[in-house]
This record gives sequence, C-alpha cells and structure tokens, in this order.
Amino acid sequence: MEIGKEEIAEWFKGLQDSICESLEKLDGHAKFSEDEWSRPEGGGGRSRVIKKGKLIEKGGVNFSAVSGPTPDKILQALNLPEAEFFATGVSIVLHPNNPWVPIIHMNVRYFEMSNGVWWFGGGIDLTPHIVIPEKGKDFHQFLKSTCDKHDPSFYSKFKKWADDYFFVKHRNETRGIGGIFFDRLADEEGRTKNEQWEFVQDVGKTFIPAYSDGVVLLRDKAFTEDDKNWQKIRRGRYVEFNLVHDKGTKFGLDTNGRTESILMSLPPEANWEYDHQPETEQQKETLALLKKGIDWIS
Amino acid sequence: MEIGKEEIAEWFKGLQDSICESLEKLDGHAKFSEDEWSRPEGGGGRSRVIKKGKLIEKGGVNFSAVSGPTPDKILQALNLPEAEFFATGVSIVLHPNNPWVPIIHMNVRYFEMSNGVWWFGGGIDLTPHIVIPEKGKDFHQFLKSTCDKHDPSFYSKFKKWADDYFFVKHRNETRGIGGIFFDRLADEEGRTKNEQWEFVQDVGKTFIPAYSDGVVLLRDKAFTEDDKNWQKIRRGRYVEFNLVHDKGTKFGLDTNGRTESILMSLPPEANWEYDHQPETEQQKETLALLKKGIDWIS
Repeated sequence: MEIGKEEIAEWFKGLQDSICESLEKLDGHAKFSEDEWSRPEGGGGRSRVIKKGKLIEKGGVNFSAVSGPTPDKILQALNLPEAEFFATGVSIVLHPNNPWVPIIHMNVRYFEMSNGVWWFGGGIDLTPHIVIPEKGKDFHQFLKSTCDKHDPSFYSKFKKWADDYFFVKHRNETRGIGGIFFDRLADEEGRTKNEQWEFVQDVGKTFIPAYSDGVVLLRDKAFTEDDKNWQKIRRGRYVEFNLVHDKGTKFGLDTNGRTESILMSLPPEANWEYDHQPETEQQKETLALLKKGIDWIS
Repeated sequence: MEIGKEEIAEWFKGLQDSICESLEKLDGHAKFSEDEWSRPEGGGGRSRVIKKGKLIEKGGVNFSAVSGPTPDKILQALNLPEAEFFATGVSIVLHPNNPWVPIIHMNVRYFEMSNGVWWFGGGIDLTPHIVIPEKGKDFHQFLKSTCDKHDPSFYSKFKKWADDYFFVKHRNETRGIGGIFFDRLADEEGRTKNEQWEFVQDVGKTFIPAYSDGVVLLRDKAFTEDDKNWQKIRRGRYVEFNLVHDKGTKFGLDTNGRTESILMSLPPEANWEYDHQPETEQQKETLALLKKGIDWIS
C-alpha cells in the first residue's frame, strides 16, 4: 500500500523525538524546550529549541504538519487552479559553541495537494566555520552511502543541487561545504512513492550518525579569541544566506508562517566588519574551499 | 539654470566630507578610513567607515556616482526601452556603542536616464533600541522644520511613507520610530527641479544637527548588561529588515553592486534568541511604540 500523509507526519514526529533525545545525550548538559503551536488555517507544529549547551550554543529541531488552501505563490508557480494542500516535515539547524564544530542543517519534508500532486524534499548540509577537508570527506561519505543504497544517481545529482542551492551569490561563495539537497521528488523515473519515502526516511536517520561523527574530537578542540571572532563573521554570512537567498525562509515569511520557528535558524550571535579579511592560513584555506563543484570524497 | 548631474554629485561628495568631519568631532576618538572603488560599467564611489569609536561602534558614510546601461529591473518597472543611467547619492548608517543612543540612517540620491527621466529620493530615519518619546518628538520636529520650509505637504506625506517603508512585516513592527522617506521626487505639482534639489540638500544638511541633538545626554547614560543584550536583539531586527525587506539593499545585491558598501549598514554584533520577550518596562514600552501612524510631535 502507498504511504499516506498521516503516516508520514507521524514518522516525522517520531524522528523529531529521537533526534532531540540523541542531541540531548550528545550535548550532555542542555535540554530542549518545546512550543506547540497551531495555525488558524489548519494544522500546526512542535518547535523545540536548545540553548547554552556544552556542545550546542543555539539549536532548533522543528516538526510541523500544516494544511489549508494552497498559497497562491505555489499555484502560480505550478500553473494550477485552487486546491487544498498538506505539508509536513522536520527542520534542524544547530549552532555550536566551539568554532571548530560546524553548523549543521537538515530538512525532510512532504507536500501534497488535493489535486493529486505530491512530492518529497530535503537534504543535509554542513557549514564549518573552519573547513577541515578530511572531516568534509567523512561527512560527504555518510551522505553518499545513504544515497547509494537507494539510487546510484542520487548522490552526484543531489550533491550538485546542494552546491547550487547553498550559494551566497553576493559573496561569490558557497554557504559551507554543501551536502545533499533535493526537491519535488515524486514517482518519476521508475521509483515508487514508497521507494522515495524510504530514501527520505534514510536521510532523516543519517542525521545523528553524521553529526555525531562530525563533532567527535572537534567539540573539545582548543580555540582562540580570533577563532571565535571568525566564527561570528561566518555566522554573519549564514544570516545573509538565510535572509537574502533561502527560498524556504522567504516562502515562510511571505506566506505569514510562524516567524519564530522560521528564524530559529539564525545564530545566537553574529558579527559584521567592513571588508573583513581572513588572517590565518586556516581561514584563507576555508575561503578557498567555499566553492561549488569540489569532490570531497576522492 | 537647471541643476546638472555633475553639480549634484559634487555637492553630495562635499556633503560626505562635511558629515565625516562633523562625525569625527562628535565621536572624539575614531577616524574614518576610506576605500575608493570603481565600477567596470562606469563610475564608482568613496566608502568611508568608522569603527570602535567612543560614540560610534560601527558606521559608514558612503558616496557613489555610477553610470552605465540602466538595469533591466528598472526598465521593466518603468516599461521603458534601453537607456543609459546616472545615479549618485550619499548613504549613512551609524551603530552606536551605547544602547540608549539610536541607530540612524540617512540617504539622499539622484537618478537620471538618457531618455530624460529623473528623480530625487532619500530620507532620514531613527531606530532607537530603547524609545524615549521626548527624543522622538525632537527628532521628528527637526525633520518637520526642514520639510515645512519647502512644502507644507511634505512632512506628513514623507513621514507616512517612512512608516510604511520601514516596516518589518514578519514581526509586525516598524524598524524604529521612522522619520521621512521619499522617492521619485520629480518636477510634479508645480515644483521645479531646482526647488526639489534645494529640499534634498536641506535634508542632507539636517542630518548632523538632528543626530548631534539626539545623542546629547544619551551617549554617556549608564546602561546595564541587559540593555546591551536588548540592543543586540534589536540590531538583529535591523538586520532582518535590511536583508529581507529593504528595496535598496535587494536592488544593490541583485544588480551586482559593491557588496561591502551595501552591507556596511549591518551592525557590528547582533543576537538572536528564540522567542525573546521584553523584560523591563522600557523594553515593553519600546515595542508598544514600534507602530505605524504615531504622531510624535503633538
């Protein structure tokens, strides 16, 4: 039987639970607090935030399942007449204390309309303040392994999509070292809805192992005040991407979404300095690696 | 004789000089540094930044005079065929150290095309981290006096325009207490180009007295750590407005403008906390006053 929207939403809710539990263990100090909210037009969500942890300075793990008349912007883009929609997903952004630990972002989502249109979307991507190529390799290897289990074309296709999507055009640099990004994944190319759903579930399940592996050794690495300042400058670029370029953020704000849940992605502190230049070799190397098309694995 | 573009640009350049000189005196410690830049398609500018002053933590006073083929976005908006354009102006944003001192923004600009279209634009507006109604009254009185010298309809029209323009829609609050904002000021309604130019010059000349008066008494006012944190939260909203809503920023980034000059408006440090709530009476009163349509003067 084909998977239904309620089952998908329930699974995402469980994913939020299990990820929050794992992150609390990983952090070892801070606990999530929860806000349940509902949307006048239909549905709602559970926003969970963690702050001032040992590992995580500020983070959010949000679940939502909303419904109602499809926003005009979507109908126009698809050239479709009025329809009801249902959308559910889990979104995560974690800002660590230690500048050596990367910012991580994950999203898995499902969208359907009463006219029968449906798709999955999502991805995981990493934004190190200081890029360590071997760590980048490990991270991409996690994603490639997950992709390869489902379709040999996925990793290269979705890796390129992430490079193109997470691009801070006005800085001519990628947001970080990318990862995978996919959208409008439907039953094209001989893959059934259930097969696509299994892939999306696997992406969700990859988050904790990939992140846990990524923070080992780095979370306790000593850092200087200059490293911390660099982290805040890089967080400024993260803000610029999310507010200027991110389609999800823009769509959420434009369609009167829940502002606090949408903007939970913003860092606890960010700095801007006029014409800031990298000083250390690591900072220079980081900027040199914020480019599209890098093959992290080989 | 009607004022010409070179004369306008020269006057703006002089305005930048005199404002920078006055601000250095007012600050009493920091000095501006200058970057001259040119634009491949034509023209260029002088970006001047000041940082870590006694009064000003980070500020920019930019002059530019650029020319070339008119960006498609403007031609489309005006439904006009290809034309050359010339644009010149001065832009200022000052972020103070002391949370009691407001952020101030000023812009005066002139735009013309080879097809004969021309207009002036600009304005001055204030973003106090903590709103003090009597100070708001003084500030608006400065602007009203300047407007009233030129046209009895200007202040109320341009004050409303500022309220509408500097609105952070996704927060349902104004960026600050507004001021005046005007655009596409041409020779309509019986006012000549030279008369409009005199008004724009007067706006430019109002900046220093209005700001100097505004910072007196506040610049040395004692503040708590909580005030400083509140300032950083309010600066976060400033970032949100500038990156999500400000048409000038968006246009600059979209048309491949000079990123560092466009983003000099961003604060030195900004914070985001999930669902941050005002704690003190002053903070609550501030939020209550971030509304459109407040008559500050009477």
